[in-house]
Formats: sequence, structure tokens, C-alpha cells
Amino acid sequence: MKETKKILLDSRPEGTPDSSNFKFETESVPEIKDGELLLKTEYVSVDPYLRGRMSDAKSYIPPFEVNKPITSVMIAEVLESNHDKFSKGDHVTGMMAWKELQVSDGKGFRKVDPEKAPLSAYLGILGMTGLTAYLGLTEIGKPKEGETMVVSGAAGAVGSTVGQIGKILGLRVVGIAGTDEKVEMIKNEFGFDEGINYNTTENMTEAIKKACPDGVDVYFDNVGGEISDAVLFNINKFSRTVVCGAISVYNETSLPKSVSVQPFLIKNSSLMQGFVISDFEDKHPEGVQQLATWLQEGKLKYTETIREGFDHIPQAFLDLFEGKNKGKMVVKV
Amino acid sequence: MKETKKILLDSRPEGTPDSSNFKFETESVPEIKDGELLLKTEYVSVDPYLRGRMSDAKSYIPPFEVNKPITSVMIAEVLESNHDKFSKGDHVTGMMAWKELQVSDGKGFRKVDPEKAPLSAYLGILGMTGLTAYLGLTEIGKPKEGETMVVSGAAGAVGSTVGQIGKILGLRVVGIAGTDEKVEMIKNEFGFDEGINYNTTENMTEAIKKACPDGVDVYFDNVGGEISDAVLFNINKFSRTVVCGAISVYNETSLPKSVSVQPFLIKNSSLMQGFVISDFEDKHPEGVQQLATWLQEGKLKYTETIREGFDHIPQAFLDLFEGKNKGKMVVKV
Repeated sequence: MKETKKILLDSRPEGTPDSSNFKFETESVPEIKDGELLLKTEYVSVDPYLRGRMSDAKSYIPPFEVNKPITSVMIAEVLESNHDKFSKGDHVTGMMAWKELQVSDGKGFRKVDPEKAPLSAYLGILGMTGLTAYLGLTEIGKPKEGETMVVSGAAGAVGSTVGQIGKILGLRVVGIAGTDEKVEMIKNEFGFDEGINYNTTENMTEAIKKACPDGVDVYFDNVGGEISDAVLFNINKFSRTVVCGAISVYNETSLPKSVSVQPFLIKNSSLMQGFVISDFEDKHPEGVQQLATWLQEGKLKYTETIREGFDHIPQAFLDLFEGKNKGKMVVKV
Repeated sequence: MKETKKILLDSRPEGTPDSSNFKFETESVPEIKDGELLLKTEYVSVDPYLRGRMSDAKSYIPPFEVNKPITSVMIAEVLESNHDKFSKGDHVTGMMAWKELQVSDGKGFRKVDPEKAPLSAYLGILGMTGLTAYLGLTEIGKPKEGETMVVSGAAGAVGSTVGQIGKILGLRVVGIAGTDEKVEMIKNEFGFDEGINYNTTENMTEAIKKACPDGVDVYFDNVGGEISDAVLFNINKFSRTVVCGAISVYNETSLPKSVSVQPFLIKNSSLMQGFVISDFEDKHPEGVQQLATWLQEGKLKYTETIREGFDHIPQAFLDLFEGKNKGKMVVKV
């Protein structure tokens, strides 16, 4: 009988998670039954939103359970199949457990084609990352040509994609990131019009004002906290804020406080809306199609940070909170 | 030549305004020219949003100028007319200066019919108040039958109307107000299902939870601040917050801070949007029609606090910030 390593939630983090919140175990892999697949993990997506599932709090997806495997979106090869839809040798993507080998009923999985794009792209630009950028921007941000957009977390996987889509759609795009290197990258590699390094900028409100002489029409918010406060002072009448992530406050143990948004929303007849990709499942096929087209046309670039080795999955996740990734963080197993 | 008293902005308030921010002067009234009207003030609307215009800050309408008359929506009788559309004896409503007598070109004014409703109603339930309640709720709150709505500032002019419209549309309606008397009023007179007195309730989050066992789908926010923070903890997936007023923070001199809304919006795929009645001018006729119908059918009640005398206009306005009004505050001149 085959054995597999697996990674479980050992304890719920208080504040910033660390390696003690995870534990490795080994289990034996059962034989597949009718309608089942045996899957061998190839790529694992690690994402900031997983932090939310490590806490025992009500959210848009249920929390992980202590002593149960962590799950995330992964790519796996089909080693054995008793399933109508998938054959030995197929590559599939879907929500799977952090195991090297696993048996699954294939529910919610879809095949991915390694000829069309590298497998890891299906976890990023053609997966949740790309769809979050595209659907968040178009469904909530509703940008109009000639408008100005600010993107926080701009060097991240979602942020850098949002900025490029903004340029394709004819916006002025200003990105906020945490190092000069990242600021150069979003301008030179991803075509942002301006970049602001929040770690070296004293007055963010003024810096945003200078970078956005016509004000901010769309704010794609990946971070929350003080950076988002500074954007508020620059929003235009009828502006839209896509609230996609709040990585700056995910690890706070006390309730985070910010500038009251309400007076700004009234003054500007402005909208803020939380965006979760799973609310827009009916639009995923259209989104993947559009992203793939832009990718093939060379209009969309993406960056990945690929770590290697099953044992390095937890550290890859932890490194997200220190900004050690450029673009999508993926672990190759 | 006739003379008239007028009320000017004497100084911009720091924090809570007081009577020293206003001054009374007298001026002579010119003869009317072609296309002009001589108007005699009958009713003056005083509203919290005027506080915003007393400050020299960018907002959805320009600030008042120091040493110039305050303006608000008023009802006046036409004493003389050289205007095609209006005749002597007509009653008109529109944005006018705080003067007993004034000459106007009638731009933006419309006639009101004292046979259909008392004149003061056109400043309230059939004016900006009623339209704010109706259009804010329907255009942003988008309520669905059976949902739960929380209204803050529930005993105020807008709040009490929002609650009643919520009941007409089949919602469970919970109001938040500042005295037991007001809580009784919204339940007994305006048909709210539940009321919470925020001044005597220790844990607002728990009180809202108890009053809204199915969570909050629509929040009609007139106050901002801590009350709105408490509502956040109870919002449902896909909830909508109509940000209509923030009276609790209008007079703060430092930048008000609140619980960060962003994580709550993400968790719940929730929307917050600032509402300003002037953005929806094309919907005003439809709104007045609907409100008048409900009023005639006896489905909509309204409360007014009517002060008497031109000299008492500033004090009536100041009393809004101490909650001395029940329903729409109007000054009869």
C-alpha cells in the first residue's frame, strides 16, 4: 500500500501564523473505488486568504479544522482513474488537500491543458488570481476608458494583473507597493503609469494626489489599513472601491481601526464592495477565455515565485505575509 | 422700498456650530424685473447636511460663503410675478436664501398645492426627506420582501420614513434611536418591529443581534460612528448599506476613526454606498408620486417639529444636533 505525506492544521494562529501552526503526518493511500481518481500533486497554490480559514471565525468559506489537512487550489496528475470524465495522464485543477497523493471523486475539478499554457499558470493568471483581477475589476470597479485607478498590493499576483487589465481597458494606473524594486517592476514590466513605495513615502495622501492629478475613480484594494485610508482622501465623485483583500490587517489580534469611510462615501456618492471570486462562478468561463486571449496576444504578463518541494508549502505560505513573493506564489511538488 | 431681514454665515464652526456662527442683517428689497418673482417666505427646512456646507471643505455641494446668506429648501408665496410660470398667490418650493422677502428668477422652483397636502409636507415627506428615504432605500438598499433592515437615526425625519417604507415593502424593520420615548414612537406610531435605545444599551452589537435573529440585509445609516460599527458585526452575505448621513461625526474636529469596514465587506461580499438625493433627480417625479399615493392611502405617517418665527431658524438648526426634533424640523415664518 502506498503512503503519502500530508500537512494538517496543528493549531489556530493568534496574529501572524508561523510554522508551529502546521504539522506533517503520513497516511496510507486507499485503493480507488468506482467514480474515483488517484491524484499526484504537481503544483500547490498558497494564498493570503487561507489565513482567514485558519481562524475559527465566520467568513465566506468555512474555517479549516484542527488536525485536518489544509486545502487549497492545486494541480495534480491523474495516476489512476475509475471516473468517466478523467483519464490516466490528465492534469486536473480544483480544491484539494495538502497531500502528495490523494483519492478524490473529482467533484468540481476541471482538466487543464499543458500545451496551451504552463501548468502553474492555471493556478495564477488563468486561475483564481487572474479571475479575481478580471472579475473584481469589471464587475465591481466598472472602469471607463480615461479614468484613473489605484491598485494596492500592486506587485502581488492579483495586483499586477489588475494593473495590466486596467491598461488594456484604457485607464491611468497607479500602483502601491512596498519596495523600490517592486515599484520599478510594476512600471517597467507591467506597464503601470506610476508607482508609490509606501515604505519610503512620508505622506501617502499627498503622494497619491500627485500621482492621480484627476483623482481616483477606481480603487482596487488588496491591503486595507493606512494605505486605504490615504486613498480615501483622493476618491472622486461616483468612485468605486473593489475591496478584494485586507492583508495589512489579517494578522491583527485586536479589531483594526481606520479612518471612518462613511463621510467620504457620502461626500462622493461613492461605492465600496467586498469581492469574493466564488460569488461570480457563472462568469468564470468568460473570464478564463478573455484572460487566455490576452495572454496569447502577449498583452498580459505574469510573474510567479515557484518554490520546490512538498515540505516547503507552509513556509511559502508564511512568506506571503512578509512580501517575499513576486507575483503568484506556487509550490512545485 | 420694502426691507427684509436675512441670516448670514458669520463664521465657520469648529466642531459643533452655535449661534455665533450666524448673524442677522437687514437689506432693502429691489423691484422685480422681467422674469422675476417677489417671494414671501412661509416655511424653511433646516437639515443636518447644512453643517457640511458651513465648512470650507470639498463636498457634493459647494460650501456657504462667509457674510453671504445661508440657503436651504423653502416654501414661499408669490407676492408679485413677472414670470411666465408662476402667478401671484402661488406657493413655490426650491432652494432659497434665509430672508423674509426675496426676489428670484424662479430657476429650479416648482409649484406646490396646499389642497393636496399641508405646505410643510412639501419640505418633508413629499420633499427631500421623503425622496431621500424612498430613493436611498430602493436604489441602493434594493430590499427584497422578507429581509431584515436596520435604520439608525430611526426617529428622525428620514429614518422614520425609511422604516415605514420598509414595512410597506415587507421587511423586518429594526430602528435605533436615542431615547425610550423615541423607541416607543417608532414602534407604536411608525410600525417598526423593534427599537433599540443606544443611550441605555451597553452592548449594541449583541442588542442588534438579538433584534435581528436572521442578520442584517439592509442597513440604512443616518449616523455613522460607533452605532454603525455595531451593525457591521451583524451584516449578512450580500448585505447593502445605504450611507445617507453621518450626524455622529459631522461635528468632530479630528478625523473620526471607526472599526475597519474592509474585512467585513470582504467576508460578506457586502456593499456600502454613499447616497445623495441630488444624484437621482431623474427619479424625483416617480418618487413624489409614490410617496403621495402612500400618504393618501394612509400607509405613510409623518411627524414634524414646527418652530415659529424667522428669528428662530438658527436655533432650530442647532437643535438638530441635540436630537430635539421629532421627525422633520421646519420653521414657519
